[in-house]
Amino acid sequence: MGLDQQHWSEECGVVGLAGINGAGELAALALHALQHRGQESAGVSVSDGHTVHTHREMGLVADIFTEPVVKSLGGNFSLGHVRYSTTGSSLVENAQPLQVTCHRGAIALAHNGNLVNAHTLKREMETDGSIFTTSSDTEVFVHLVARSKADSFEDAIAEAVQRVEGAYSLAALTRDKLIAVRDPNGFRPMCIGRFQDSYIVASESCAFDIIGATYLRDIAPGEMVVLDGDGLTSRQVMQPAKPSQCVFEHIYFSRPDSTVFGQSVDAIRRKCGAILGRESHVDADFVCAVPDSSNTAALGYAQATGLPFELALIRNHYVGRTFISPAQKVRDMSVRIKFNTVQNIMQGKRVVLIDDSVVRGTTMRKLVKVIKAAGAKEVHLRIASPPVTHPCYYGIDTPVRNELIASSHTVEEICTYLRADSLQYLSLDGLMEATGEREKYCAACFDGNYPVPFELDISQEIVESSNEILGVGSPDGP
Amino acid sequence: MGLDQQHWSEECGVVGLAGINGAGELAALALHALQHRGQESAGVSVSDGHTVHTHREMGLVADIFTEPVVKSLGGNFSLGHVRYSTTGSSLVENAQPLQVTCHRGAIALAHNGNLVNAHTLKREMETDGSIFTTSSDTEVFVHLVARSKADSFEDAIAEAVQRVEGAYSLAALTRDKLIAVRDPNGFRPMCIGRFQDSYIVASESCAFDIIGATYLRDIAPGEMVVLDGDGLTSRQVMQPAKPSQCVFEHIYFSRPDSTVFGQSVDAIRRKCGAILGRESHVDADFVCAVPDSSNTAALGYAQATGLPFELALIRNHYVGRTFISPAQKVRDMSVRIKFNTVQNIMQGKRVVLIDDSVVRGTTMRKLVKVIKAAGAKEVHLRIASPPVTHPCYYGIDTPVRNELIASSHTVEEICTYLRADSLQYLSLDGLMEATGEREKYCAACFDGNYPVPFELDISQEIVESSNEILGVGSPDGP
Amino acid sequence: MGLDQQHWSEECGVVGLAGINGAGELAALALHALQHRGQESAGVSVSDGHTVHTHREMGLVADIFTEPVVKSLGGNFSLGHVRYSTTGSSLVENAQPLQVTCHRGAIALAHNGNLVNAHTLKREMETDGSIFTTSSDTEVFVHLVARSKADSFEDAIAEAVQRVEGAYSLAALTRDKLIAVRDPNGFRPMCIGRFQDSYIVASESCAFDIIGATYLRDIAPGEMVVLDGDGLTSRQVMQPAKPSQCVFEHIYFSRPDSTVFGQSVDAIRRKCGAILGRESHVDADFVCAVPDSSNTAALGYAQATGLPFELALIRNHYVGRTFISPAQKVRDMSVRIKFNTVQNIMQGKRVVLIDDSVVRGTTMRKLVKVIKAAGAKEVHLRIASPPVTHPCYYGIDTPVRNELIASSHTVEEICTYLRADSLQYLSLDGLMEATGEREKYCAACFDGNYPVPFELDISQEIVESSNEILGVGSPDGP
Amino acid sequence: MGLDQQHWSEECGVVGLAGINGAGELAALALHALQHRGQESAGVSVSDGHTVHTHREMGLVADIFTEPVVKSLGGNFSLGHVRYSTTGSSLVENAQPLQVTCHRGAIALAHNGNLVNAHTLKREMETDGSIFTTSSDTEVFVHLVARSKADSFEDAIAEAVQRVEGAYSLAALTRDKLIAVRDPNGFRPMCIGRFQDSYIVASESCAFDIIGATYLRDIAPGEMVVLDGDGLTSRQVMQPAKPSQCVFEHIYFSRPDSTVFGQSVDAIRRKCGAILGRESHVDADFVCAVPDSSNTAALGYAQATGLPFELALIRNHYVGRTFISPAQKVRDMSVRIKFNTVQNIMQGKRVVLIDDSVVRGTTMRKLVKVIKAAGAKEVHLRIASPPVTHPCYYGIDTPVRNELIASSHTVEEICTYLRADSLQYLSLDGLMEATGEREKYCAACFDGNYPVPFELDISQEIVESSNEILGVGSPDGP
Repeated sequence: MGLDQQHWSEECGVVGLAGINGAGELAALALHALQHRGQESAGVSVSDGHTVHTHREMGLVADIFTEPVVKSLGGNFSLGHVRYSTTGSSLVENAQPLQVTCHRGAIALAHNGNLVNAHTLKREMETDGSIFTTSSDTEVFVHLVARSKADSFEDAIAEAVQRVEGAYSLAALTRDKLIAVRDPNGFRPMCIGRFQDSYIVASESCAFDIIGATYLRDIAPGEMVVLDGDGLTSRQVMQPAKPSQCVFEHIYFSRPDSTVFGQSVDAIRRKCGAILGRESHVDADFVCAVPDSSNTAALGYAQATGLPFELALIRNHYVGRTFISPAQKVRDMSVRIKFNTVQNIMQGKRVVLIDDSVVRGTTMRKLVKVIKAAGAKEVHLRIASPPVTHPCYYGIDTPVRNELIASSHTVEEICTYLRADSLQYLSLDGLMEATGEREKYCAACFDGNYPVPFELDISQEIVESSNEILGVGSPDGP
Repeated sequence: MGLDQQHWSEECGVVGLAGINGAGELAALALHALQHRGQESAGVSVSDGHTVHTHREMGLVADIFTEPVVKSLGGNFSLGHVRYSTTGSSLVENAQPLQVTCHRGAIALAHNGNLVNAHTLKREMETDGSIFTTSSDTEVFVHLVARSKADSFEDAIAEAVQRVEGAYSLAALTRDKLIAVRDPNGFRPMCIGRFQDSYIVASESCAFDIIGATYLRDIAPGEMVVLDGDGLTSRQVMQPAKPSQCVFEHIYFSRPDSTVFGQSVDAIRRKCGAILGRESHVDADFVCAVPDSSNTAALGYAQATGLPFELALIRNHYVGRTFISPAQKVRDMSVRIKFNTVQNIMQGKRVVLIDDSVVRGTTMRKLVKVIKAAGAKEVHLRIASPPVTHPCYYGIDTPVRNELIASSHTVEEICTYLRADSLQYLSLDGLMEATGEREKYCAACFDGNYPVPFELDISQEIVESSNEILGVGSPDGP
Repeated sequence: MGLDQQHWSEECGVVGLAGINGAGELAALALHALQHRGQESAGVSVSDGHTVHTHREMGLVADIFTEPVVKSLGGNFSLGHVRYSTTGSSLVENAQPLQVTCHRGAIALAHNGNLVNAHTLKREMETDGSIFTTSSDTEVFVHLVARSKADSFEDAIAEAVQRVEGAYSLAALTRDKLIAVRDPNGFRPMCIGRFQDSYIVASESCAFDIIGATYLRDIAPGEMVVLDGDGLTSRQVMQPAKPSQCVFEHIYFSRPDSTVFGQSVDAIRRKCGAILGRESHVDADFVCAVPDSSNTAALGYAQATGLPFELALIRNHYVGRTFISPAQKVRDMSVRIKFNTVQNIMQGKRVVLIDDSVVRGTTMRKLVKVIKAAGAKEVHLRIASPPVTHPCYYGIDTPVRNELIASSHTVEEICTYLRADSLQYLSLDGLMEATGEREKYCAACFDGNYPVPFELDISQEIVESSNEILGVGSPDGP
Repeated sequence: MGLDQQHWSEECGVVGLAGINGAGELAALALHALQHRGQESAGVSVSDGHTVHTHREMGLVADIFTEPVVKSLGGNFSLGHVRYSTTGSSLVENAQPLQVTCHRGAIALAHNGNLVNAHTLKREMETDGSIFTTSSDTEVFVHLVARSKADSFEDAIAEAVQRVEGAYSLAALTRDKLIAVRDPNGFRPMCIGRFQDSYIVASESCAFDIIGATYLRDIAPGEMVVLDGDGLTSRQVMQPAKPSQCVFEHIYFSRPDSTVFGQSVDAIRRKCGAILGRESHVDADFVCAVPDSSNTAALGYAQATGLPFELALIRNHYVGRTFISPAQKVRDMSVRIKFNTVQNIMQGKRVVLIDDSVVRGTTMRKLVKVIKAAGAKEVHLRIASPPVTHPCYYGIDTPVRNELIASSHTVEEICTYLRADSLQYLSLDGLMEATGEREKYCAACFDGNYPVPFELDISQEIVESSNEILGVGSPDGP
């Protein structure tokens, strides 16, 4: 997954503050800690109790929130958002927060997740005369809030959530309130922290740490919390449904220093590595990770197996949207530009290489080649999660891409394709053992048990093309 | 040092190719691997055998060498450069390569290092009627080349190097040649690689790996190599002087996956950690590094002492020139934005924290505070290099900054200032043992034994102010 | 008015083409001819018969529609827009065309004018659940179109226009049609031209000339024309109301080379000048204009009076948003940077200075000073339109600005304030005589007879502050 | 010439101030008045008496000198420059002022003109060891100043001017002085003004008017003036040579509101028009100009002949580097985008069209077509200067372009090519009569009498290609 980050990445990060001076700047700072959840665009909405204003742009938080922009933010209430990076139709119109005015006044809204009935709702509201200026499902939610006859924004949001289905952890900023709510299944994380005399909500607790706030608890599935500057009030606006926490948050998305779904991400990754070590013994000289997302699992694997932990691959953190011409691409530069092997360590060694997950396999194929070229005698690939066989419809960007190698090939076939000496995945049982709360997680990408039904037209795209995957990689191919 | 990166960073990276199609793009790709040596500006000069052209800008390689720029490069000969990042007077005029025309035609020149007699030479040449358009010592060298009456650029460069003193690994691009030379002391690294039928030179071997070239050997002190597209010719243009390889390349500057001064950086850092472990025993629960530059030393320390190696600090790689207002700075956000502690790991534990070096100590002071706030019972600071007591005049950006805490304080005083439970540095003997070639290195920053005398006016600035350092940090200060 | 351009300028320009290759580029070219109608933002929407796409940005047409942008436009149908320049809340969200999707598909809409009941409609639709993302009345119109249950976009627009009141000449681009409609009073101009085998609509005929199209006729008040690529169909969708063509289009807004409201702008301005000459005789040496907008009237004045026409003021066309510090402003640089006197011509002369209109008078006050400083013995100010006493609510940017000097001062007082030797305005009768069609024009800004009632809250702002105007200009004031 | 502005435009503008607060901002303001002399780049150097700093960029003055830049200028001494616009190799390195350091300290230099022996001097100094970083002859002059052994910058400049030949009006800014000098022939203008208690120098007096300074006198050929903040001192550093004022300054380059070479540009243009009217009688209905540069001559022509003066062509001032695709170019859009005819005025009329000059004729050919298409019965072209038959080597950008239609064709042939009904140029005698000082002007472009010999290699380029010109324009060609 470290290898396929760009192809499995429709994630977002949200943060909100209320009743604190400098709320806008604090939100911008907190977004730095959430930057791993989305590098395409970032935005911060602020309110001084009277007027709501939004600044959002394409790009990274540090490039957008420069000194003059930060100084102009001000505000006692704020809402921040980072959005995932995809290649194609990236438009600033789709950046969040989305600010509009409706009969109750101004509201800015940001969310993480995916509404599975957005298309139907959009068609329905269009038929009823609504217009849409973006292609994001956030706008669908905003329309529902605006259409509610309820007296307050809180009640309107409480009404709107009855209509939407799917995964959403959303936060809204009004003139004088910050409102946050999580879907009844609790797919996406959102937690509450304490900052001085005020409260903060965020997708991950690492956003609290960066400003010195402390983690209190998760927002519960179906719960709405309202921060009005004086304090926090909570309402259970929906009946909790089958708990469906996204296990991929623990596997890959979240930062290891975060508490997510009430648990330390580091601790779970470590257990995944340890259980993987137990399940997939191999005689080898050392363990190394595909940095950085697999470091913790690799450390757990090493500690469990007694094999030495090595830093044998170096990741280049300066690599962004580097242009590489077709002529250079055949020389594996797309992987070489991101990873390099440390001299001599691989030479003649039997290496256990840990990655957190494998989606398409194309980049891993090149990486194995690079490691062998560095002298490794054997490369034993160990994946700290089960084979990804099904697309996600709850906020992850796989559905539109027919690139799940495990959806149509056996582990053995994949191993051959990747040119590894052995390949083993963590079992689903092992993964759930690591979480310690099997019944609380969605693992649809591994087992196809989708907790919430989705619109059919979304799910079609991947079917026919999945068999083409291995054909892409000819023996000397990219 | 991971903590003080911005204050000890007048480093640069150079790469040159000759006789290969797409030389410009290959240089740009190789600069990605050298980006850690300089983030202020980057440039690539190319020649198609007839015309020399240079593209240089302020910023990161990936931001400058976008698709249209890369496509416009072309060339069979190329010279690339990345320059360090400082805050103040960053001007594109000082970016490299510096291209000029003289009586022999066009030449582009780039170098890594510092000419200690640049000021004298500049004054001398000004008196003789020369003009200067930059404040970089590269221009001094270019003037010497232009003034030479020698027949060829090679001979002119060979003449020019007789006049300059100090540290320089430089490369020059002419219409049809790439010429590289290292100073007689060999302060700064530069090595030769093989790429298909052609040659490449670079500051570090990781620039070879990224394009699939292979390391051949270092350019020797006083050696000039000329790549003319057909092959490589070598001339010893200066008598080698006392070997003075910069030991800080091994400690901090170079990437661990590079071969520098003929040795694996990873291997030496690992030994530094191991010897530090041997020299500075402490009862503790685990070892962790200030990521990323201290990772290898920490691993070596852990392996030598048998203490567990932990990933307990997470570095945020998206942080650049983030603006933080004074009000937020008092909350330690400048360190929190870069580093976070992993939940629970520190709790109640005795932590050995490894950093590669300490320069000013101000950021480390905050980091210790953050780690204690995360619950660590004890923080034992172990530095994988000796106390930095003297400024460097050979290409590192300390001289103008009076910020060497160890220049005026004992280890005990520093420990108190940093609020650590114990502090120990690697001994100079231990460091030299790690290199295995004590006689080949310059360690002036640790022992004040400067191998090449320098102009007095440069060395003055730091004297009076060094006693002010501790005053800056009051008990609750930033 | 040449002097007060920035304070009387909520004008826009619209152009649309259908059924022609390169429609996007042609619209961009035509916008160059309409640039005088709006310099804040520009946009072009195109359709290839299937997909609608919009490119809009803040800035000038030539800066936005660069080679790569123009090349990317393509299309067989296009809609272009330029928007006026104001200082404050200029946001790209308010730029036009505004593209949205609704139940009928995508539509892009652009208009020139002002809906006087936009606020009421907006509040009504918000109450009914609509959201608004801009502060422009274009969005109100788009909502009405989306809410219509009519079968086609044409019918929906025909329905929507029944609801809106005020001034609008609008054009809409759908997948395969270009639809244009003018309000029943016909406040703002819009005309139809022939271009090869296809049609074009535009705010002024100079947009036809630039691409070689020929003027056919105006769109009639209340008429809708639909260009579907095969030809033009016309529907009278509203009963024509009292004709209310904006006479200021002839006085100032339009280009003299345009046909507007079926008449040559040049011819009417010339007549205004001539009648002004007849009405306001003065012994003088020559006539000169405040260039460029008053040139034609000045020429008419000269021809009618027999006084020589002189080019005595030079306008600097390179001046844009030039920054002038307060210290320099006291030296009249804001007027000097735009206008300079030709040496010697003024010396000892009695000058008739023609301007098209006077709004605030502050800049004219400085200009008279500059002309006197150039040696003029007498400055006789002649204004080729009546005193502006009432704000406009039909698409001009006066309402929010309490700066109509003639609303609260006599001609004599104004003359004193302007430091002119005499001041005379064209009479309203004279103006109407120049148009030759008195009954077809709105002259509310001169006589307060507003043909369409407007919402009260808009009209309040100007009341209290109008008496402060003269106070602003102390004898040595700016 | 209005038509060919982009092809005859190697002009520059210079301004310098000394001993006045806000000197930097004043220079930036003054550059607005000189913008017509160069639109490619602009720069301002300032000194506060101690440090010299330069800000220069590609683009227009108003785009470069924005509020933050202007605020950062400060200074008591300043030097400003605008540079001509060409298409090809525009590089910021060639922008002026050029600031360097030499043995006397910092100096910034800017000039208007062309050194005809720059190439020889450059080669000579390169042989002697100098390096060049630009392709501008300013750098040659800077080298000469730096090489001088003289005690002061004044003396060094006085020495340097003995070596250079050609046309130059240059100004230099040092730490505490502004030094200006004009070549001994006085090709290019430069004059002195009084501003409060201090002095100002500029290429044209309109730069004085904009800030409220007053014209004193021209700098004499061979004179150097030194402004040191206390006053002005003058030295005759060179023996005046044959007076060779560029007559094209009066014909086209300068603004009509300027005093240039001690005379009103307006007055001379007016006389040119009047004499042209006397020389080239034709029965016609009215006179109109190619705006704006020919307006004054056209007015003079009308007054002399008694024909009515008409405003029949409108120039679009918003047109910059507009992109027009090849497909649209065939429709004459390159001329239509700049000029439009006023409706009806041309219809059935015999038009006398005045242009200041004709260089290539290609654009005029299109304009005549457009005017005929607007209904003109006859177009009688009258050019207010003689046929341009020879390239200029004294600062105008013709030499490298073989585009002088009159160099190889008779007036009759040109008339046929331009599709005009008649064509007549002002005679050289008539032009000189207008100046009133025949012996003071260079008219080499008309008569080939070059007052200063030039290097041969420059003069070659144009020879062979001049016969191709008419071939370019086929009957229906562009």
